[in-house]
Amino acid sequence: MSRIDWSHFASPFSWRYGSEAMRRIWSEEHKRCLWRRIWVSLAEVQSQVGLVSQEQVEELRAHQSDVDLERSAAIEAEIHHDLMAEIKTYAEQCPGASGVIHLGATSMDIEDNADLLRLRASLGLIRDVLVDLLELLAGHIEAEAETLVMGYTHIQPAQPTTLGYRLCQYAQDALIDLQELDHLRDTIRGKGFKGAVGTSASYQRLLAGTGLLPREMEAQVMERLGLPAVPVSTQTYPRKYDYLTLNVLAGIAQTLHKFALDLRILQSPAWGELREPFGKQQVGSSAMPFKRNPIIAEGLCSLARYVAALPGVAWGNAALSVLERTLDDSANRRAMLPEAFLATDEILHRARRILADMQINRAAMARNLAAYAPFAATEMLLMELIARGADRQEMHEVIREHSMTAWRAVESSADNPLMDLLASDPRVEHYLTPARTRQIMEGGISVGDAPDRCREFLSTLRLTLRSTRTGDQDK
Amino acid sequence: MSRIDWSHFASPFSWRYGSEAMRRIWSEEHKRCLWRRIWVSLAEVQSQVGLVSQEQVEELRAHQSDVDLERSAAIEAEIHHDLMAEIKTYAEQCPGASGVIHLGATSMDIEDNADLLRLRASLGLIRDVLVDLLELLAGHIEAEAETLVMGYTHIQPAQPTTLGYRLCQYAQDALIDLQELDHLRDTIRGKGFKGAVGTSASYQRLLAGTGLLPREMEAQVMERLGLPAVPVSTQTYPRKYDYLTLNVLAGIAQTLHKFALDLRILQSPAWGELREPFGKQQVGSSAMPFKRNPIIAEGLCSLARYVAALPGVAWGNAALSVLERTLDDSANRRAMLPEAFLATDEILHRARRILADMQINRAAMARNLAAYAPFAATEMLLMELIARGADRQEMHEVIREHSMTAWRAVESSADNPLMDLLASDPRVEHYLTPARTRQIMEGGISVGDAPDRCREFLSTLRLTLRSTRTGDQDK
Amino acid sequence: MSRIDWSHFASPFSWRYGSEAMRRIWSEEHKRCLWRRIWVSLAEVQSQVGLVSQEQVEELRAHQSDVDLERSAAIEAEIHHDLMAEIKTYAEQCPGASGVIHLGATSMDIEDNADLLRLRASLGLIRDVLVDLLELLAGHIEAEAETLVMGYTHIQPAQPTTLGYRLCQYAQDALIDLQELDHLRDTIRGKGFKGAVGTSASYQRLLAGTGLLPREMEAQVMERLGLPAVPVSTQTYPRKYDYLTLNVLAGIAQTLHKFALDLRILQSPAWGELREPFGKQQVGSSAMPFKRNPIIAEGLCSLARYVAALPGVAWGNAALSVLERTLDDSANRRAMLPEAFLATDEILHRARRILADMQINRAAMARNLAAYAPFAATEMLLMELIARGADRQEMHEVIREHSMTAWRAVESSADNPLMDLLASDPRVEHYLTPARTRQIMEGGISVGDAPDRCREFLSTLRLTLRSTRTGDQDK
Amino acid sequence: MSRIDWSHFASPFSWRYGSEAMRRIWSEEHKRCLWRRIWVSLAEVQSQVGLVSQEQVEELRAHQSDVDLERSAAIEAEIHHDLMAEIKTYAEQCPGASGVIHLGATSMDIEDNADLLRLRASLGLIRDVLVDLLELLAGHIEAEAETLVMGYTHIQPAQPTTLGYRLCQYAQDALIDLQELDHLRDTIRGKGFKGAVGTSASYQRLLAGTGLLPREMEAQVMERLGLPAVPVSTQTYPRKYDYLTLNVLAGIAQTLHKFALDLRILQSPAWGELREPFGKQQVGSSAMPFKRNPIIAEGLCSLARYVAALPGVAWGNAALSVLERTLDDSANRRAMLPEAFLATDEILHRARRILADMQINRAAMARNLAAYAPFAATEMLLMELIARGADRQEMHEVIREHSMTAWRAVESSADNPLMDLLASDPRVEHYLTPARTRQIMEGGISVGDAPDRCREFLSTLRLTLRSTRTGDQDK
Repeated sequence: MSRIDWSHFASPFSWRYGSEAMRRIWSEEHKRCLWRRIWVSLAEVQSQVGLVSQEQVEELRAHQSDVDLERSAAIEAEIHHDLMAEIKTYAEQCPGASGVIHLGATSMDIEDNADLLRLRASLGLIRDVLVDLLELLAGHIEAEAETLVMGYTHIQPAQPTTLGYRLCQYAQDALIDLQELDHLRDTIRGKGFKGAVGTSASYQRLLAGTGLLPREMEAQVMERLGLPAVPVSTQTYPRKYDYLTLNVLAGIAQTLHKFALDLRILQSPAWGELREPFGKQQVGSSAMPFKRNPIIAEGLCSLARYVAALPGVAWGNAALSVLERTLDDSANRRAMLPEAFLATDEILHRARRILADMQINRAAMARNLAAYAPFAATEMLLMELIARGADRQEMHEVIREHSMTAWRAVESSADNPLMDLLASDPRVEHYLTPARTRQIMEGGISVGDAPDRCREFLSTLRLTLRSTRTGDQDK
Repeated sequence: MSRIDWSHFASPFSWRYGSEAMRRIWSEEHKRCLWRRIWVSLAEVQSQVGLVSQEQVEELRAHQSDVDLERSAAIEAEIHHDLMAEIKTYAEQCPGASGVIHLGATSMDIEDNADLLRLRASLGLIRDVLVDLLELLAGHIEAEAETLVMGYTHIQPAQPTTLGYRLCQYAQDALIDLQELDHLRDTIRGKGFKGAVGTSASYQRLLAGTGLLPREMEAQVMERLGLPAVPVSTQTYPRKYDYLTLNVLAGIAQTLHKFALDLRILQSPAWGELREPFGKQQVGSSAMPFKRNPIIAEGLCSLARYVAALPGVAWGNAALSVLERTLDDSANRRAMLPEAFLATDEILHRARRILADMQINRAAMARNLAAYAPFAATEMLLMELIARGADRQEMHEVIREHSMTAWRAVESSADNPLMDLLASDPRVEHYLTPARTRQIMEGGISVGDAPDRCREFLSTLRLTLRSTRTGDQDK
Repeated sequence: MSRIDWSHFASPFSWRYGSEAMRRIWSEEHKRCLWRRIWVSLAEVQSQVGLVSQEQVEELRAHQSDVDLERSAAIEAEIHHDLMAEIKTYAEQCPGASGVIHLGATSMDIEDNADLLRLRASLGLIRDVLVDLLELLAGHIEAEAETLVMGYTHIQPAQPTTLGYRLCQYAQDALIDLQELDHLRDTIRGKGFKGAVGTSASYQRLLAGTGLLPREMEAQVMERLGLPAVPVSTQTYPRKYDYLTLNVLAGIAQTLHKFALDLRILQSPAWGELREPFGKQQVGSSAMPFKRNPIIAEGLCSLARYVAALPGVAWGNAALSVLERTLDDSANRRAMLPEAFLATDEILHRARRILADMQINRAAMARNLAAYAPFAATEMLLMELIARGADRQEMHEVIREHSMTAWRAVESSADNPLMDLLASDPRVEHYLTPARTRQIMEGGISVGDAPDRCREFLSTLRLTLRSTRTGDQDK
Repeated sequence: MSRIDWSHFASPFSWRYGSEAMRRIWSEEHKRCLWRRIWVSLAEVQSQVGLVSQEQVEELRAHQSDVDLERSAAIEAEIHHDLMAEIKTYAEQCPGASGVIHLGATSMDIEDNADLLRLRASLGLIRDVLVDLLELLAGHIEAEAETLVMGYTHIQPAQPTTLGYRLCQYAQDALIDLQELDHLRDTIRGKGFKGAVGTSASYQRLLAGTGLLPREMEAQVMERLGLPAVPVSTQTYPRKYDYLTLNVLAGIAQTLHKFALDLRILQSPAWGELREPFGKQQVGSSAMPFKRNPIIAEGLCSLARYVAALPGVAWGNAALSVLERTLDDSANRRAMLPEAFLATDEILHRARRILADMQINRAAMARNLAAYAPFAATEMLLMELIARGADRQEMHEVIREHSMTAWRAVESSADNPLMDLLASDPRVEHYLTPARTRQIMEGGISVGDAPDRCREFLSTLRLTLRSTRTGDQDK
């Protein structure tokens, strides 16, 4: 971490949260590489109508990667304009082409297209981890489609379900997130090359007599950049795109917040059913060596809460911009965009780390099920007793009585005696043998069609993943 | 307004904001009509396997619309459960079918499907106004594609554009909103019939031996409701759907907030270019009868700010729900969902009202253009002078000097003398005749390809509207 | 509930959430009563300098409460201005004083002072319940200062604490809320009477020659209203006051959200330590009669989430208002202010209801303590062993080994055998007799000075409540 | 800027926004200095009862500032715990005292007190700039108390006011912010030394037999730190403090957002009344050298919007923490706290920069006043005419007619002819000579008691600033 200056504030997103790859995308260096790539593409197209010579294009290409931030900073200190400083730095490196860099362009023609390229690359990274996550979930769903666990509503035992089916819910949410992300990638477009107020007036003047229309020039440069352009624009691309992007990231954060919150509760020894991975060398507190604090999941929730606050900023940028553009978006976008991506990136990596090595405590699941499921099973018994002619009111009271007794036993950590109590009650025996009562109640611990739904969902999920994996290559 | 009780708080969304149609969708009465419709559909399908008789189905159908809120409220006062109270009320009306209402169902099987039906109907209303709005915008864009206006960045004059092109930006944002709305309608699905924890256990028991699987029953009922079901669920449909819905509404609010904010500034006499409609009988203040406060637009912005706060609530509902469901969503959804729809509805109606009768002050546009556009035109002149061999530095200084003089004139409300000053400056005359200088500068007041882009965008817009109008019939 | 129109949207805050008293404060009727009260006070002061006659004042006073919403609505339908319609209605009732109502005033002189009166009255209601709540908490803290319970960090057992001490945390937060509320009441002020742009120009003209200055008139009217005026203003009182108010409400919601979330977890049978009250007649589900869903607490959390979203709206109203006033605050304030108060009111009433009859399960507390506290006690044993010359590393390993065994036992619901295992381990016996080991470990289950801190905090709390109760009478 | 690693994401708050002093407070280095300061204070107090020797205290003091982040990072890489790594690093530097660092303490006893010290120091920095700002405002208010400007409501001309009076509104809001900040500093307290769950159990054991109670030890250490402790706590100080802090920062951001938004509009040439400072060397665009983009103010608004989003994160941290502490606050606090302070710091510095050299265009003010104020003056004329027996309806119509004519003139940039038109209208001349009409109307351009209110407010403001400046020395 020697690269960090610890004597001043260093954002946790500069070193602690998020992946190396994401941090590089949002570096000053990479941004300037993209600017230069755009200038080269612009020059290439302009060279076809003679505005730029082939030699100039080659000179620009030769220095495309020679970002020199020291020099650029020195110039910026004088002229207070980062993009202009970069042009001058580039121009110094390419004396022959110095007059043709940025020809006809407005700063935002370069910056906004570069931002869109960064957004798309970042979405690509996010997508990859999201797909990994879905594949890990798919594996667990397959393995646990029939694993009985107690289901909870109101954080109170309700009816049994399966672990696989519970995991399906997260996967379903994450799959919606993936579809939203893909829909977003189909929606967002670069600004293109439209100048100061979006009318392409400067390009029209520049290209006058060349036979090339501004829109044709734009289309050709954007094709080189692999980025479609928005049909009309102000000085910038529609800031609504930032809002849509933040919504997708906050949506992912939402899905994984729920997953992590469930895990944090299930990891409590009161439940003890699931645990996030725990390093071999890692020690719990010395006094409580068994203690397992779900710190991966807790940090995930913390960052998710952060991401959730940011779409509001993007909303304001889009809603409050005046006429052809005001600059009240710029400063906050420098923090909001990278931090939202880096936080979501960290959230996804944490969720993947949890799912890759999640510890499943089957004994605890069985214990909880044994304690609470018999109560749910009385519904089936009641139906059977009524079918055999018993009085609903009377039987309901019998069940209520024994349930209260059984509940007190469970509360004091004893085994759940409910099945025995009911099987041996004479009022029940009048209609059913004890063996039959037991049989019915065991049958009553039902997870319905949860395993089947798991398998159906799984096949849809895998189909989607397979097709998007393939489809992705085009993007 | 005699229907409102003015002695207690009455939400402005109950009477002041939003359309009659939207207010009806979110009434208690309509909700219960939907519940009954769902119970009827459920009984119809269950009757096919003999669980419900044909007579019972017919009895239920006969009373489907007989919602009796007075009776229901009386029962609810005793049992504290609104859905159960409705069942009992319905059962009293259908004594023969009283035992088969809600067979195998959990409350949320009814409530959540009804909520999705309300969401979809509300989205349909929103969509209709949004399409109207786009058509009104299309009309203006067509008419004003070539209407020159001054363009502004930083709320400072920049370069000319056209009114039609400016309107394209709002239309482009609104078109994205429309596509988001349609994408949302393709995404959201009802809960279906999956019982207390989503496993369909109760339906499996009920249907045992009938040959009908729970998923088949679900599919058939949902088909009758015209609503696809989510493949897997907890006790509720994924609360992520609410979040996605709120995001779409806040996106619409965002687009129209920008439009209304621009209008509020342009309506200021300092600009005076556009005005929201103003009733014939309406009076400005008596002291300032000409005064036109943009109150339709101001109220629009106010409500947009409100809508923008609500996705955060929906985010929390989805992210903080624990395991198979907690009830921390219910209370806020009773306010958040209807109010978000009613506020967005009002926003759209206000925007439509403005666009339907927007007053365009062409004299003011011309005045502003005459004042500021000549400055922008000096760029063209400079290019021409350099092309003819003039020294860039010197010419730049000439232009700067005269610009400052011209600016002072403009500031004191005089005509912009810049063209005259430059045409008659000997240093310029050295290269260009006064007539040529004027010609170049007039040519320099260029809106680039804005009119062409208007027309291209317009044809895409109209194509999309035409196809969605048609496509809509399937939904 | 016959007063509600169920065929249209009725906000849950109109009938379901919040107290009757709060709903009345935010009614249209009460607002107009306040308007009239302000007009009367204004006339009273103006009568002292002869602008209004004594008879006119008396006529106005006589009809001060005769709000006639039907008539007023009819007039508003024509002139589209609610305050002007109220003036005309009042004038019809007071023909002799019709010319002197609202003399020199701007609408916002009336509306904004009335709004501040509503805010203050609402804060008074909120304060009363908050104080009740603190007194209920004080009672519990006193009773439970020494009641041992397991403490949890990371939702994992940590070290013992006392129930009273845990409750101190909520009380401390609520006490901060109370102090914030009182600070707010000292901060906010009415607009006073300053006219259209805050300069009192119209009053200056009106009072010219009377010897009464506008500021003196303002001070006298405000004194009659029991409301100090802000020294300077635009057309409205500073919208920052709304923001501060919403922050206080959201702060209360925050405190009680944490309380309710803790309760929802502690009420889960896995813990089972606390329960919200449950009506005698209330039934859990028929299948699980023992089941206790914490629905009061869940609804509380739901509404708290809603309240938390609203300060953002108030922030925007204050930050985005332009120059002497724009109307982008008005529409959302009609919903935001009453709903924030009604929701907070409901939250407080729910918390009070819970605390008034909270069920404490001492057996469950003992069970959880027996299961987890011995682990925490090993810290004390280790210190003692080292003090007696044992090797830290070796003893740590001994403790770790037995802890893991004990943990497995606890997980399978057996009693915690840790004390026995350690007391009888020869490596421990080398330093300590089994009896001494037991004694140390029992001593190790320590709650430190929690009981003392409870008592100290309690005395501060009670002192504060006593003094504020008294102080309150002045407000 | 060589200290920044440009190849990875560097937060704009690490280099671009905020002051050097604020960036140092939030550095890793400073945090560790604070940790060491707390360890030293703890050892000093513990040495008084013999738990730590005088030599050990001196050794610790000697190395208090020797933070060695390289070594510490190496250790952290092994043990994954930053505070423990710092203890080990410190211990290596102080071999004699290695066993007595952090005696009895929990990590959060150190970290949370250090965080409170950082919060308070940051609030101190913020306060200083806020006071500077208020003094700059005071200077302008004094100078411009009588400077007439047109006042605007709905962004439409309304009635005249004075520049000083307009500035009073910002000052009044900022003064409330200052009072909120001071109230906050009186409210927030450190965690103190209360161990893992707030019960001080570990200190009680440690201090057993020394005669020093944990609360006494706590009080003595906290006194050395100059920080009072909260009476009761969980593992952390109440997270409500973070929420209150963020609210104060967002409140400052709100005040200055309104100021900057007003400025951005007034700086538009359409108004042209005020301008933010503009560097001598700075060039507007070459084509429009007179153009002045209000970029300081625009960036201010951008950051204010960012700050406004963060209280929601702090709300969640406080409301969602479970029982004695969950770790879902930690990760987001690492970004939220420093970034909120750095952004607010930047906002304040920008506002100070603007106010220190704000350009006031008196000609533009006069021009706008001449154009719009006569309309406002007709109110006075009407009153006079009626007083002289004219018919209100007729005179109103006369004024309306001429106002419309005058308005059209103003719209086409001509002088406002209203006074002439009215003075020479025979229907007016019937009651008033032209000279008298003119006199009345000129008198009608009234700013009421705005200048007096300016002066009164100013004296309150200065009194407050003087007293807080003094009071501040105690903090």
